[in-house]
Amino acid sequence: MLRVSRRSILLASASVPLALAGFRATDSGRAAESAPSQKPATPVVKDVTRTLAGYIVKAKYDDLPPNVRKEGVRTLLNWVGVAIGGSSQPATHIAVSALTPFSGPPQASLLGRRERFDILNASFLNGVASHILDFDDTHLRTVIHPAGPVVPAILALAEMQPVAGKAFLNALVLGVETECRIGNAVSPEHYDMGWNVTGTAGVFGSAAAAGKLLGLDEQQMVWALGLAASQPVGLRESFGSMNKSFNPGRAASNGLLSAVLAAKNFTSSDEMIEARAGWANTLSTRQDYAEITSGLGQRYEAALNTYKPFACGVVMHPAIDAAIQLRNENELPSDQIARVDLKVNPRVVGTTGKKTPQDGLQGKFSIYHAVAVALVEGAAGEKQFSDRAVRDPVIIDLRAKVVPVVDPSIKSDQVDMTIVLNDGRSFHKYIDHAVGSLEVPMSDQALEKKFADLADGVIPPQQARQVMDLCWGVENLANAADIAKAAASA
Amino acid sequence: MLRVSRRSILLASASVPLALAGFRATDSGRAAESAPSQKPATPVVKDVTRTLAGYIVKAKYDDLPPNVRKEGVRTLLNWVGVAIGGSSQPATHIAVSALTPFSGPPQASLLGRRERFDILNASFLNGVASHILDFDDTHLRTVIHPAGPVVPAILALAEMQPVAGKAFLNALVLGVETECRIGNAVSPEHYDMGWNVTGTAGVFGSAAAAGKLLGLDEQQMVWALGLAASQPVGLRESFGSMNKSFNPGRAASNGLLSAVLAAKNFTSSDEMIEARAGWANTLSTRQDYAEITSGLGQRYEAALNTYKPFACGVVMHPAIDAAIQLRNENELPSDQIARVDLKVNPRVVGTTGKKTPQDGLQGKFSIYHAVAVALVEGAAGEKQFSDRAVRDPVIIDLRAKVVPVVDPSIKSDQVDMTIVLNDGRSFHKYIDHAVGSLEVPMSDQALEKKFADLADGVIPPQQARQVMDLCWGVENLANAADIAKAAASA
Repeated sequence: MLRVSRRSILLASASVPLALAGFRATDSGRAAESAPSQKPATPVVKDVTRTLAGYIVKAKYDDLPPNVRKEGVRTLLNWVGVAIGGSSQPATHIAVSALTPFSGPPQASLLGRRERFDILNASFLNGVASHILDFDDTHLRTVIHPAGPVVPAILALAEMQPVAGKAFLNALVLGVETECRIGNAVSPEHYDMGWNVTGTAGVFGSAAAAGKLLGLDEQQMVWALGLAASQPVGLRESFGSMNKSFNPGRAASNGLLSAVLAAKNFTSSDEMIEARAGWANTLSTRQDYAEITSGLGQRYEAALNTYKPFACGVVMHPAIDAAIQLRNENELPSDQIARVDLKVNPRVVGTTGKKTPQDGLQGKFSIYHAVAVALVEGAAGEKQFSDRAVRDPVIIDLRAKVVPVVDPSIKSDQVDMTIVLNDGRSFHKYIDHAVGSLEVPMSDQALEKKFADLADGVIPPQQARQVMDLCWGVENLANAADIAKAAASA
Repeated sequence: MLRVSRRSILLASASVPLALAGFRATDSGRAAESAPSQKPATPVVKDVTRTLAGYIVKAKYDDLPPNVRKEGVRTLLNWVGVAIGGSSQPATHIAVSALTPFSGPPQASLLGRRERFDILNASFLNGVASHILDFDDTHLRTVIHPAGPVVPAILALAEMQPVAGKAFLNALVLGVETECRIGNAVSPEHYDMGWNVTGTAGVFGSAAAAGKLLGLDEQQMVWALGLAASQPVGLRESFGSMNKSFNPGRAASNGLLSAVLAAKNFTSSDEMIEARAGWANTLSTRQDYAEITSGLGQRYEAALNTYKPFACGVVMHPAIDAAIQLRNENELPSDQIARVDLKVNPRVVGTTGKKTPQDGLQGKFSIYHAVAVALVEGAAGEKQFSDRAVRDPVIIDLRAKVVPVVDPSIKSDQVDMTIVLNDGRSFHKYIDHAVGSLEVPMSDQALEKKFADLADGVIPPQQARQVMDLCWGVENLANAADIAKAAASA
């Protein structure tokens, strides 16, 4: 029904003189080029924004299948861990310092920190903190990092007005669902154009989740999504700088602002996603609106979230997985390694081709560093993407021996690695699905280990344990804000 | 120099295996498709962001030619007038009400109102108010409304830390220069894609102007522009709703946020405007970087600002001008008019084709209403785009007789109008340059009349007079914030 053309109706009512000049006025105020009568009219897509808004407004926690609830809880726990872990990073310190003079009432916590900010600024700051380690969750099809734009907004809201755990989890799932479906509709062309889809689609997720908790009606939700459409955040050129973490943070606060305004009836167009001069047509060369509107409440993108075992972009995970496995299975002294050949997916070089990273942040965009440090240290956590690791002479020496070769037959979660030693011996590993993928997901136990490592040095282990327990039991909480309060520094 | 290719250098250092697969890794981490050796390499554009940032950081008030200073003052006065005029509109009330719970310290005034907000929120709210009447300034080549994103940010900053009038005017000019040059580089393709260039280029203007007043060094200014590039605001689909005014408001606060973060060394890429996955390549199919970097300090886009005599988009101004002139020169009782034929520029129908507007805001996007109300009331101020006017039966009756015909030979500030009466007599008017254009600019006196009309009913006439005097004399003020304080309600 969504793809049924209304063009014939519009043409019938168009004014004749305008048609003579090759243009037709529609009552919606947009110009449409008149198609020659023998050719089929371009389909006019309708009601995408409204259909999505209607679903978000009506969807209930009780409707969520158990696996979706479970993945929502894992999404929450993983996000809280990375937000705590990123809370003491320089980018977070800077952003907190910069915004302190302008913050409103201390309505919401910063995870892992002592300061409290108004909910808009807190959403931004927690969103920045949660992404600065590049260690958060990933919706693999779109490479959206779903939690960053969504969770900080609703966690802040819950501190201002109590939100029961079930309603909180429902809003989280709906936010993730919204951003990933919109991302699907325009991927991969949208990302290839230059957009960081986490910030551009993420803002819809934040608006949807926050709007759900604010009790928006369908029209208000349409407006909230419309205001979100006006505020896409982030370009891929920012990768490797603090600006990348800015993206999910600003998406969170932009979406929350959209919902807050819509709740007071600040209006927008009714078709901001699908209109000719709307979001999808302007920000992508591909639009498949069925990705947004079909199977709502039946199939869940939110069930397809994944979590990183390594503190860098997922494109490098297969290579790191292979390197760690080869290291654990063999004796491979780094000074004996002659070369590390790896066949990689084309995207690896596009996003992580830095040959001589200068600091930890740049190291996250260097396949050369990632493979070298994994071989030397047998891990690829935050410590392996520190300034210390990137400047380690042993690792610098080894990274010069890493030789990635693009092979279009290698899928994004695959790698084919061969290590050749100085004595001529070679070791081979093929990874079909990297650890952390949908096929080889991180276990709950592995998520807890990751959380504890991230919290280490930020909050006491006992507090970290308590926060994890609150996350696992979120559905039983009278107020989900307990999680934020428990995750703040005393 | 900016267009000199560095590709050959990059190619020489690219790793051979990657080249075999059709990709080359550059040290900056981006993939570049390898061009066949017989074809010239695509020029790699460098230093656009840095060149612009260097100019902004160094440019002095004393360098500004007198005509540029004068136009900057007119830009200021016109903007203050429309911000006061829009301060009592529903969209402004709603936004103020929505943000009140989250505002920080009362650092900055809202023009025409009593409330005070932190500078980020005040920038947003004054920016919204100044555009809600669609009565602000226009850089005709790009259709950017330059003041809305820039002035509220620096006016708010001046309330927090005193800014001498000359420094304030210099920042204003640099902000307008920045956004209009960036807009020129991607126009008209950028707007045609669906973007509202006022919000997408405007955010650079705000970042530049605010960054200038915050004393950013060149690297910080590069980062501020980079953070601005991550936050384009607005799609044309929002036109006709409150979301349109959201665009300059959010551009103002986004740019100010960018400058505030950059001042604390929150980093970005150094090439966010010109990089492959940067702003210009991602948001437009056209990029002419010489528009940004050539003749800095020599030619000024800021001298090309124009001001609206009518409270609607400039595309309708020629038709309104013709209608008012024909009405003033002849006896044209509206019930005697059989039809109003007008040949218009193609863009008129694209953006103002609403045949049956339902309220005042929609009336601003209806060439039918605009011509009808101008003929009936002899004016096209804010009162003529009210709900009252749009629902007036006499005007509704007449608008059905307005017949715009697109004529590609008609330029954007032209119109050819013929009014035919029931008795067969006809009256003709051709407008070559509409009043308010560069060729027929509004006089200082006309700007004062417009200001006074906008302030009428919001602040007392004596106060309006005082604010106008402060604007005209801005260069002599010890603190430009005096203007904001004087324009607030007592």
